[in-house]
Amino acid sequence: MADQIKCGVVGATGYAGFELARLLRKHPNVSASVLFRRGEHSAATLDEAYPQIMNGQPTPLHAFSWEQVEKEKVDLLFLATPHETSWELVPEGLRRGLKVIDLSGAWRLKDEANRKIYKLVESAVSVATLKQSVYGSPELHGATIRGSKLVANPGCYATSVILALAPFAKNDLIDRHADIVCDCKSGVSGAGKQLSPKTHFVEVAENLSAYSVFGHRHTGEILEQLGISAERLIFTPHLLPIPRGILSTIYVRLKEATAAATVEETLRKFYAGSTSVRIFPHPLLPQIQHSLRTNYCDIGFALGPDGKKLILVSCLDNLIKGAAGQAVQNMNVMYGWAEQEGLN
Amino acid sequence: MADQIKCGVVGATGYAGFELARLLRKHPNVSASVLFRRGEHSAATLDEAYPQIMNGQPTPLHAFSWEQVEKEKVDLLFLATPHETSWELVPEGLRRGLKVIDLSGAWRLKDEANRKIYKLVESAVSVATLKQSVYGSPELHGATIRGSKLVANPGCYATSVILALAPFAKNDLIDRHADIVCDCKSGVSGAGKQLSPKTHFVEVAENLSAYSVFGHRHTGEILEQLGISAERLIFTPHLLPIPRGILSTIYVRLKEATAAATVEETLRKFYAGSTSVRIFPHPLLPQIQHSLRTNYCDIGFALGPDGKKLILVSCLDNLIKGAAGQAVQNMNVMYGWAEQEGLN
Amino acid sequence: MADQIKCGVVGATGYAGFELARLLRKHPNVSASVLFRRGEHSAATLDEAYPQIMNGQPTPLHAFSWEQVEKEKVDLLFLATPHETSWELVPEGLRRGLKVIDLSGAWRLKDEANRKIYKLVESAVSVATLKQSVYGSPELHGATIRGSKLVANPGCYATSVILALAPFAKNDLIDRHADIVCDCKSGVSGAGKQLSPKTHFVEVAENLSAYSVFGHRHTGEILEQLGISAERLIFTPHLLPIPRGILSTIYVRLKEATAAATVEETLRKFYAGSTSVRIFPHPLLPQIQHSLRTNYCDIGFALGPDGKKLILVSCLDNLIKGAAGQAVQNMNVMYGWAEQEGLN
Amino acid sequence: MADQIKCGVVGATGYAGFELARLLRKHPNVSASVLFRRGEHSAATLDEAYPQIMNGQPTPLHAFSWEQVEKEKVDLLFLATPHETSWELVPEGLRRGLKVIDLSGAWRLKDEANRKIYKLVESAVSVATLKQSVYGSPELHGATIRGSKLVANPGCYATSVILALAPFAKNDLIDRHADIVCDCKSGVSGAGKQLSPKTHFVEVAENLSAYSVFGHRHTGEILEQLGISAERLIFTPHLLPIPRGILSTIYVRLKEATAAATVEETLRKFYAGSTSVRIFPHPLLPQIQHSLRTNYCDIGFALGPDGKKLILVSCLDNLIKGAAGQAVQNMNVMYGWAEQEGLN
Repeated sequence: MADQIKCGVVGATGYAGFELARLLRKHPNVSASVLFRRGEHSAATLDEAYPQIMNGQPTPLHAFSWEQVEKEKVDLLFLATPHETSWELVPEGLRRGLKVIDLSGAWRLKDEANRKIYKLVESAVSVATLKQSVYGSPELHGATIRGSKLVANPGCYATSVILALAPFAKNDLIDRHADIVCDCKSGVSGAGKQLSPKTHFVEVAENLSAYSVFGHRHTGEILEQLGISAERLIFTPHLLPIPRGILSTIYVRLKEATAAATVEETLRKFYAGSTSVRIFPHPLLPQIQHSLRTNYCDIGFALGPDGKKLILVSCLDNLIKGAAGQAVQNMNVMYGWAEQEGLN
Repeated sequence: MADQIKCGVVGATGYAGFELARLLRKHPNVSASVLFRRGEHSAATLDEAYPQIMNGQPTPLHAFSWEQVEKEKVDLLFLATPHETSWELVPEGLRRGLKVIDLSGAWRLKDEANRKIYKLVESAVSVATLKQSVYGSPELHGATIRGSKLVANPGCYATSVILALAPFAKNDLIDRHADIVCDCKSGVSGAGKQLSPKTHFVEVAENLSAYSVFGHRHTGEILEQLGISAERLIFTPHLLPIPRGILSTIYVRLKEATAAATVEETLRKFYAGSTSVRIFPHPLLPQIQHSLRTNYCDIGFALGPDGKKLILVSCLDNLIKGAAGQAVQNMNVMYGWAEQEGLN
Repeated sequence: MADQIKCGVVGATGYAGFELARLLRKHPNVSASVLFRRGEHSAATLDEAYPQIMNGQPTPLHAFSWEQVEKEKVDLLFLATPHETSWELVPEGLRRGLKVIDLSGAWRLKDEANRKIYKLVESAVSVATLKQSVYGSPELHGATIRGSKLVANPGCYATSVILALAPFAKNDLIDRHADIVCDCKSGVSGAGKQLSPKTHFVEVAENLSAYSVFGHRHTGEILEQLGISAERLIFTPHLLPIPRGILSTIYVRLKEATAAATVEETLRKFYAGSTSVRIFPHPLLPQIQHSLRTNYCDIGFALGPDGKKLILVSCLDNLIKGAAGQAVQNMNVMYGWAEQEGLN
Repeated sequence: MADQIKCGVVGATGYAGFELARLLRKHPNVSASVLFRRGEHSAATLDEAYPQIMNGQPTPLHAFSWEQVEKEKVDLLFLATPHETSWELVPEGLRRGLKVIDLSGAWRLKDEANRKIYKLVESAVSVATLKQSVYGSPELHGATIRGSKLVANPGCYATSVILALAPFAKNDLIDRHADIVCDCKSGVSGAGKQLSPKTHFVEVAENLSAYSVFGHRHTGEILEQLGISAERLIFTPHLLPIPRGILSTIYVRLKEATAAATVEETLRKFYAGSTSVRIFPHPLLPQIQHSLRTNYCDIGFALGPDGKKLILVSCLDNLIKGAAGQAVQNMNVMYGWAEQEGLN
């Protein structure tokens, strides 16, 4: 096969990094992947950290070094690392001629005010790098992603909200005088693998909690991608007692009274060519189980009797369409391969 | 002790009925309770259905009959029955001189349009009975409950929403031009003990789903109790993969920009005398675990930077404060006992 | 591709039937599958019952009829049906020249005493049919399966126990004077999709229970396959609060004091050619998560200081290696395809 | 009330310590409790760590000091601390004239070989202290506990196993030539509140795993209390995906063929006076849900057709009868109060 590349994955021991490693292993256009563990890990192979992949041929893990990247002739580097790490690694990766897909939040936001939440120290280099970065939503920016060298892979919550609202925001159907309420619920893997009292089993099981209210990092992505006024957007994350999956319930007012069939048509038309967004036939609503372990974002809706109060329900797997799957989808777009290659 | 009564519980084999039986057993003012099983059950004792209460003295279960009620000299009858059953039993219970606390939705709604959702056949008797009925929210209608013979115990979702919003609705602080969004999440026991594909373990576990969107029965209670326009209320229930507990995230706009301290003060003042509502100190938010197996409704809030976008988070145990506990609280109020007697 | 067949699946709406339908859809040697729903179901497409598979091309479901089987030119019929149904359908299927893989317990047991537990009415036809049936454990009976027309796909619990013990039983390493204790734990999908108080979410969550002690149907399979005395086998199933997965902890005494390395070698040697059994390197033990959604049976062990007390831990996904996956594996063996074809 | 004491709880921020603080708060013979937090905690009140207890009167937490213990005039000190800490604190507490109930494993084992697993440095003082210590199983050592100053509160697994086997071991009914297999399953709170990858929600949910096979610390307790040969005891702990509760399935051979009625009678007779052990009527088996949040150990059994193969199923709440509840029960026995005082 002419068209094969070599990938690197930094942070392969984290939840998203591991899913990425698994997906790349089966991808027909990826000849090999070199995996780098997160700093705190000591496992020599990915099989040690995730025995579920044992198949007699252990996958080696390396401590990250640029030398190793060069030696392995990596074409494309995936970063499943904290944003501070990505902030450091990305410019150097680009300098060395690599393509980069970064799964952290470091390079997603263009607006200076929004970016402050990450507390990253900016420089001439970072400013220049940021200009190169494309927000990795293939449904919204496919054409730009195709030519780009740096893709900032979207946040999991942000993906579920942005994909549900985009058809209405981009077609200017939303009543801008009403609040847009995004009540989002996520499984625990969204919080990552590092230890915290908040992810101790006993604290999460039998529980539900809201967190980061009026202050979650993904807010900026939603604002920038949809062109909504911060004044009108409310985004509330909740922690669900399940390992993975996101369900976002999104409340928005339409400018005009609209028939359900028209709402469905708006959604279907917007995602007509898409391979990773499924529109549920009205009045069926997606549930978290439906999209688990797939690269789908499922969208359904309910409409108030006035034809204006619209409730969108959007589900995805935070580790696949919300992270590793979307990253692979971005790779496919960058290289001009079929968008869902390696994802079904 | 001079002040002791005898209680009857119809539907003691259901989840709420069982919790009621447990609470009454420990109540110092209840000399005895006679328990009636639901029609489809054949257990001779409550211990058969719920071995957790075994203590060497099995609690007998009876098939319901008015003769048994008379024979046992029941003073107060609790109905933990489907609304159709309550619709039949309540007028007859009142005719026989009993006090009644009904846990179903049959007698909660005064507005004819709202009541239609229950599809109950009305009659001269039902009209007269409905006039006697008080909505059993001790925090809102304590004085009326005290003198009443028929208390319609509130719905679980409705309780969590009404108690959170009441301080703002009753003090006319809510911007009536903005939607009030109630995004509510409940554990599975709220759906009752009857079998349904929707409560099969495999369908609920690892999942989250929205249901009855724009059509849940508790909507009418919220509207009637708070005096909100149906046009402005959105109430979306979700099914959580946990056995019990409700968390409601409620989005409302205040008329005026307000300080967080003032919001907290509004809540504290409204519930100053209450023994069953806990206001969480800002910015702490209640979680489902906090109120499980208690008669508390826990309320906390977050306030947007504009001082107007208010998010209320309200939690309770759907079987206690959302059903059996509130029913006991109503009994306490009816008889003039301490409001939390038998509930701590 | 020359070698392609057409499959039928009866009972495609059950949990195992659905997994089977999903696996067959991706199998390179299966040109098409015709799906029959269980009697109580009315869904016209599999997508209605399982929205997770929606992809724009709904999979039709049929009411079962032999006419449809003929019309669709089915080569191989999978039965994911209750044993009573399989008892009826299998002889007729064979008579019509079909190959059959039955996932029920109807045709697994050769010993008359063991078979009684299924309460099936035997006849000349059933006796003749039973003679044709092969117990579908590819690891133990691969050669016989290859030439057979009727495969009785093993029980989920039985598979986990038999595969762990076979290397020791077949090599006559087990102390026959000591009991063999199989303490097995299964997720809820093992109990099927039909409604029962035992699979209501509230009854299973936060719980664990033993059931069918000294009387589970899979006991006969273990006895027959391993040649153990009923007097020495103890098999206790437990219901876990998870949707899927089995972990069996199996206690056996070896005849001779043995080194851990030798125990591991015995396992590795026995499964040297196997593609669906993974031996965990001592002292690593498999967990339920490791084999979920795979066709692996994972086996690990611990050895007492005496070198005789052996504890085997065996895990598998009850719907894949314990049902649908093993059925596909059997199909592969029957047709001489690679054993794991369509299963990775 | 004449008979009131003051208690201290060291480690009140841990799971067992918190349950203890809750139980003591409601105990009629405890006038007050002074609570000490674990070293790593900084919370000023117990309400901060556990908002569920908020009631308007925050419970202060102190850093531990003997000065505070003296100042508060503590009569009885509970230690819910790691065994290393208990090893240090107990002798000094006794020296200061306090009674002590220690919930760690430090003082439970008399046999030197068994004790080695805790790696504690022994001294003349520790040897003398150990002589004073009583194993705090009120069902087995009630008389000795009554007069003692130091009670070593049993381990949670050990309690479930010892109480199930004691009636048979003490009456010499067990076949000593057969292995005793204890297959035990516990909820996650048994592993404590400290952070570990093993208790991260994502690692535990949807999973089951065996651990510490042939090497768990509670083994020594079972051996010493039942007088079983280490050669014949097998004890395998498993981690369940639930927050609390233990179910132990215990396999033992009786010397003589016995009727089920006789087995039940043996259990009932042994626990005739007990307030905290419930014998389930054969063939009903206890489940984890039955004893959650109670001080009961529930015991049921199944008997093989030979009348010799006996399977005991024993359930308890690891934080109550397995820790804090049993500690309170021990306090009651020490002071001659009703054994279940404050526990119902």
